Amino acid sequence: MQLAMLGLGRMGMNMARRLARDGHQLCVWNRTVERAQELAARESSVSAYGSLTELVASLTPPRQLWLMVPAGVAVDTLIDQLVPLLAPGDLLIDGGNSYYKDACRRADQLEARGLLFCDAGVSGGIWGLSEGYCLMVGGCRSAFDRIEPLLVSLAPPQGYLYCGAAGAGHFVKMLHNGIEYGMMQAYAEGFAVLEASDYGDQLDFAAVAHLWNQGSVVRSWLLELLEHAFTDDSRLQQLSGYVADSGEGRWTVQQAVETGVAAPVIALSLFQRFASRQPDAFSNRVLAALRREFGGHAVKSSAESQASP
Amino acid sequence: MQLAMLGLGRMGMNMARRLARDGHQLCVWNRTVERAQELAARESSVSAYGSLTELVASLTPPRQLWLMVPAGVAVDTLIDQLVPLLAPGDLLIDGGNSYYKDACRRADQLEARGLLFCDAGVSGGIWGLSEGYCLMVGGCRSAFDRIEPLLVSLAPPQGYLYCGAAGAGHFVKMLHNGIEYGMMQAYAEGFAVLEASDYGDQLDFAAVAHLWNQGSVVRSWLLELLEHAFTDDSRLQQLSGYVADSGEGRWTVQQAVETGVAAPVIALSLFQRFASRQPDAFSNRVLAALRREFGGHAVKSSAESQASP
Amino acid sequence: MQLAMLGLGRMGMNMARRLARDGHQLCVWNRTVERAQELAARESSVSAYGSLTELVASLTPPRQLWLMVPAGVAVDTLIDQLVPLLAPGDLLIDGGNSYYKDACRRADQLEARGLLFCDAGVSGGIWGLSEGYCLMVGGCRSAFDRIEPLLVSLAPPQGYLYCGAAGAGHFVKMLHNGIEYGMMQAYAEGFAVLEASDYGDQLDFAAVAHLWNQGSVVRSWLLELLEHAFTDDSRLQQLSGYVADSGEGRWTVQQAVETGVAAPVIALSLFQRFASRQPDAFSNRVLAALRREFGGHAVKSSAESQASP
Amino acid sequence: MQLAMLGLGRMGMNMARRLARDGHQLCVWNRTVERAQELAARESSVSAYGSLTELVASLTPPRQLWLMVPAGVAVDTLIDQLVPLLAPGDLLIDGGNSYYKDACRRADQLEARGLLFCDAGVSGGIWGLSEGYCLMVGGCRSAFDRIEPLLVSLAPPQGYLYCGAAGAGHFVKMLHNGIEYGMMQAYAEGFAVLEASDYGDQLDFAAVAHLWNQGSVVRSWLLELLEHAFTDDSRLQQLSGYVADSGEGRWTVQQAVETGVAAPVIALSLFQRFASRQPDAFSNRVLAALRREFGGHAVKSSAESQASP
Repeated sequence: MQLAMLGLGRMGMNMARRLARDGHQLCVWNRTVERAQELAARESSVSAYGSLTELVASLTPPRQLWLMVPAGVAVDTLIDQLVPLLAPGDLLIDGGNSYYKDACRRADQLEARGLLFCDAGVSGGIWGLSEGYCLMVGGCRSAFDRIEPLLVSLAPPQGYLYCGAAGAGHFVKMLHNGIEYGMMQAYAEGFAVLEASDYGDQLDFAAVAHLWNQGSVVRSWLLELLEHAFTDDSRLQQLSGYVADSGEGRWTVQQAVETGVAAPVIALSLFQRFASRQPDAFSNRVLAALRREFGGHAVKSSAESQASP
Repeated sequence: MQLAMLGLGRMGMNMARRLARDGHQLCVWNRTVERAQELAARESSVSAYGSLTELVASLTPPRQLWLMVPAGVAVDTLIDQLVPLLAPGDLLIDGGNSYYKDACRRADQLEARGLLFCDAGVSGGIWGLSEGYCLMVGGCRSAFDRIEPLLVSLAPPQGYLYCGAAGAGHFVKMLHNGIEYGMMQAYAEGFAVLEASDYGDQLDFAAVAHLWNQGSVVRSWLLELLEHAFTDDSRLQQLSGYVADSGEGRWTVQQAVETGVAAPVIALSLFQRFASRQPDAFSNRVLAALRREFGGHAVKSSAESQASP
Repeated sequence: MQLAMLGLGRMGMNMARRLARDGHQLCVWNRTVERAQELAARESSVSAYGSLTELVASLTPPRQLWLMVPAGVAVDTLIDQLVPLLAPGDLLIDGGNSYYKDACRRADQLEARGLLFCDAGVSGGIWGLSEGYCLMVGGCRSAFDRIEPLLVSLAPPQGYLYCGAAGAGHFVKMLHNGIEYGMMQAYAEGFAVLEASDYGDQLDFAAVAHLWNQGSVVRSWLLELLEHAFTDDSRLQQLSGYVADSGEGRWTVQQAVETGVAAPVIALSLFQRFASRQPDAFSNRVLAALRREFGGHAVKSSAESQASP
Repeated sequence: MQLAMLGLGRMGMNMARRLARDGHQLCVWNRTVERAQELAARESSVSAYGSLTELVASLTPPRQLWLMVPAGVAVDTLIDQLVPLLAPGDLLIDGGNSYYKDACRRADQLEARGLLFCDAGVSGGIWGLSEGYCLMVGGCRSAFDRIEPLLVSLAPPQGYLYCGAAGAGHFVKMLHNGIEYGMMQAYAEGFAVLEASDYGDQLDFAAVAHLWNQGSVVRSWLLELLEHAFTDDSRLQQLSGYVADSGEGRWTVQQAVETGVAAPVIALSLFQRFASRQPDAFSNRVLAALRREFGGHAVKSSAESQASP
């Protein structure tokens, strides 16, 4: 079917490619038009547009427009630019990592103008192009039905689900990522304890990861990725332990707090990432100060720390 | 090859079956001989023994004996009973969930008498019979080589690994279980936040688990099991949230503490299990007492708690 | 000075009493007028009012009105009722446990009408009447200066602080409570480990709490309260381990998440309270389900749990 | 009374001084004799000894010997050296931060030779000399009674307690320190959230700490120390956030794990210290590796990290 894809970052570009290869007709737009043109040059069923007006004009109503731009203000800005160009019955899909409460707000706002809205959580990362994207979709059921041919093309078999009313897609995706944080941290701690042990020097970590994927309880796709990482760099010495976090982990913790659900592992996984980026965190300096105050314990001055590696 | 399997609990029974079906000749012993006889009646290549002396006598030296008895004192007791019956060159494998430091001690003790020892961590649970067991093996390399035909039969393809010197097998298995605790808790928290949300009533949790296994980042075998559990009982209402723990989780935390490695997620997963079994924990009563003391906050008396459901 | 106190709950009542005893002239209002009348009957410098209109009319402009009503919508409702009755230059103080972002919003809203606003975090609980309240005050400096005579009367010596612009008072109070959660949990865990140990039966916990308050590193007021609690009920057997939480703990965790600061201890203290109120939490049932699925581990059915104590 | 003090580190030196000033007759020994001589030169009731044999010979039986040497092997070594020199009825006190299980073992070992043993947990740090030490004592009751005059001199009023059989003193001290870890971390997190907030730049942290000690729920001695630290260095910029840990925190977590008690806050406080010393922890590199693998997320190479401050 005909679809506009707006936003050709790492995710949007590959999703557009996967859709185009499955026979859909794509009109693509990107903030920097070169990426759109590049894609159009490579895929025959793709047309590139530099202006939103031209993009919308090129689509046959009722239109479908899939937004893959950074969560937050960029989504609202783009929606605000599109709304005046659209006609009742047109359908917007937000496939970014948006906060589910934003999805609810946007659905209300768009429905008031006769427009339809779906929120689609998309998982799969850089592997989605080849393996398919796992899709969690919220919004009104009829909108979901209308875009189902797109979901079939994007997802692996059985890889999409109608999760419920507006926000449900992003909500389920948010929890997916919260779980992901916890799983990653569990593997990270396990290998860290292994690394620090007497067996740490001898063990082939890639072999352990590979082994555990053969019939053990902890087998998973993340563990396959870990095997790959250890194969390339057995002790990850080319990497720095600086770990970014995105909104979903934070929102999961906030959701847990709001609804009175204990989520210690997800919260700790998030805090671990914060800490990974603050080697000389203020909280640690407070601890050092207290130890010096009550115990006369030797502490490192900031000057010493900078001198020693 | 010829093997004695000692201990026919849930794990030992199925492992013996899998070995017998792959053509090995098994002499089996169990504390209650009926289970041994039952197995021998079902599998033609299995012989049952009621006495350790007869069992050992029936084996052609150099012997292989695989112990699948509960970790701790039961292993030591059985080894103490076997040692006088064995001859130099005989080989003992401990396949239970033993503490790795015990494996090191036992290896030393047995080697001093000319006996060989392997520690084998075994994962796979009740699915091992059909899918194969993931095997993590420590001990001297020549002992590992000798039992490799058994490992090939027990494991799925590529499903066993020589992990290093004595204790390495149980050590790697210990961490496997520590990671397992963290992963389980991550899923548990994710679904708990889902359940408590506005979307919680409508969502089909089995469908979500199934979906996430199609191309998402959190796909895993545990998630397949979770799909199955939710299919049978959509909100797990037939279960009580009482969660046992076994030694490996505790040992992982102790190992982390001993070696100065932060393992917050694994520790918290363990503590969560402790707490699941202590709904009226003393620590919580201390908190309630403090709130009453400083704030005059209403608290529940233990009588009220028992009265209300 | 002249002051209206609105809201005579546990905190407001005692604060009004303390102010009246220090010579201030109080006009008091409460949702149920009887409490106001009761106070007026006991304290000669207190007048009770059943209507907000009469209350405001009785005050000499520029007025001071101190709100001690439950955080959230009750504060906004009361402000909305008062605003039409007030004149420019009148000053509102919110002494409840309000969210600091609400304080900022209210300050803006009131200042737009020429009214002044202070947010005052108040700590001290039921002991404040005799020992004085610790007061953390935000708002414009001139408003703070104006109410300083009230703060002097309410606080113990040096027991109040101007914390900065609107919201700063509630913000500092929020963190105070977050820290309180962590400290309480630290004591709770320590005594719980003591209780579960071999020394647990013999030790006099009140004596330990008293001891630790004589020169040890952990001496504190909370520990004094704990001594009192243990003196009355040596193992807190008359209490249920059901622990409520108020907004500040949740807001502290959300603030930490928003600003990327790791706050594991405060978050865990909050989650521990959540868990104390959910003995059969869904997350724990998920864990039990997984254990049954992969290991065939015995689990408790919900029926069994209800049968056994 | 007459007492030998063995070990004149930061703690032992000040304790000896406090005892001498209260009229006790002290024979002191230190691994490097100069510190003993220095003390003898300053306090008239102190005699210094360079050899254990001479030290013991100088004491009138039944003797009292107080050991203040580093926990672990140093204690056992010293005891082994002393035992041949002692006579039945002599009494050893271990005042170091020993593991309580070691105290039990040592008591058994010494009692078998007719010697008495007390384990004394000592809190107070560098402030003990002036304020007195909080003393938690285990061992047989008659031994405790015998050393009570020493405890009276060392402690502030009511500042010592007989905690029970051998090990009880070190056990109670262990938990004291576990609680201390949790309290310190609670303050550290609270001030870290404050520091990272919009109010962080303006607030006078010393003033906040001082304020909270006037009637608030979180008032404590640690908070007094924190006020002092912030007074000297308002944002602790002269300190590095490198936080050591001693045995008691680790033992508390291990004890919690062994006895099935959830101690999340104490465990997390310990892990936070571990992490403070490992800015590029392996676990964080595992997380970074996974993010790169599944998401193509940009990561920092170790080279980049070293280049950037």
